[in-house]
Amino acid sequence: MTEKLSDTARKTVLEPLLESGWEMVEGRDAIAKTYQFKDFTEAFAWMTRAALWAEKWNHHPEWFNVYKTVQVTLSTHDVGGLSSLDAKLARKLDSL
Amino acid sequence: MTEKLSDTARKTVLEPLLESGWEMVEGRDAIAKTYQFKDFTEAFAWMTRAALWAEKWNHHPEWFNVYKTVQVTLSTHDVGGLSSLDAKLARKLDSL
Repeated sequence: MTEKLSDTARKTVLEPLLESGWEMVEGRDAIAKTYQFKDFTEAFAWMTRAALWAEKWNHHPEWFNVYKTVQVTLSTHDVGGLSSLDAKLARKLDSL
Repeated sequence: MTEKLSDTARKTVLEPLLESGWEMVEGRDAIAKTYQFKDFTEAFAWMTRAALWAEKWNHHPEWFNVYKTVQVTLSTHDVGGLSSLDAKLARKLDSL
């Protein structure tokens, strides 16, 4: 079962993300990050790799793309906030 | 040269789009449409096909995806508003 991140988990899994460019979204229990690429093909190639992981894990981002910029927001709808799935997907996105 | 759509062109190329689900964006010379798909794989497959056309024509959408929903906004940065490229891409997106 996916559960909302506990206070302890927030310290251990969320803090490293917040130190690597992720930010808490105002007014929501969600994290967001903006990625910049060289051009549209690089941005969309990255999105395609990310999409495969999102689908594999059945956990999908909210994302906005314009040309070489991709803004990603992660939250877990089923639990009404951040879960370990968001942290896992965030780390994967950073690694792609 | 890409140019901003003339009043005449707006009647001929824009009106059919506005009748097929596209809407003018408030406060911008841009058009927007929300597409709904069966699930994420259908949504992203459509985005991938759209991305190939966007890159081929070197004219890229602003788009937001969450799960099976894709919100698209089209405008031509270089001319500060709608051009024939937006109408062409809008028709292509509708046909994919």
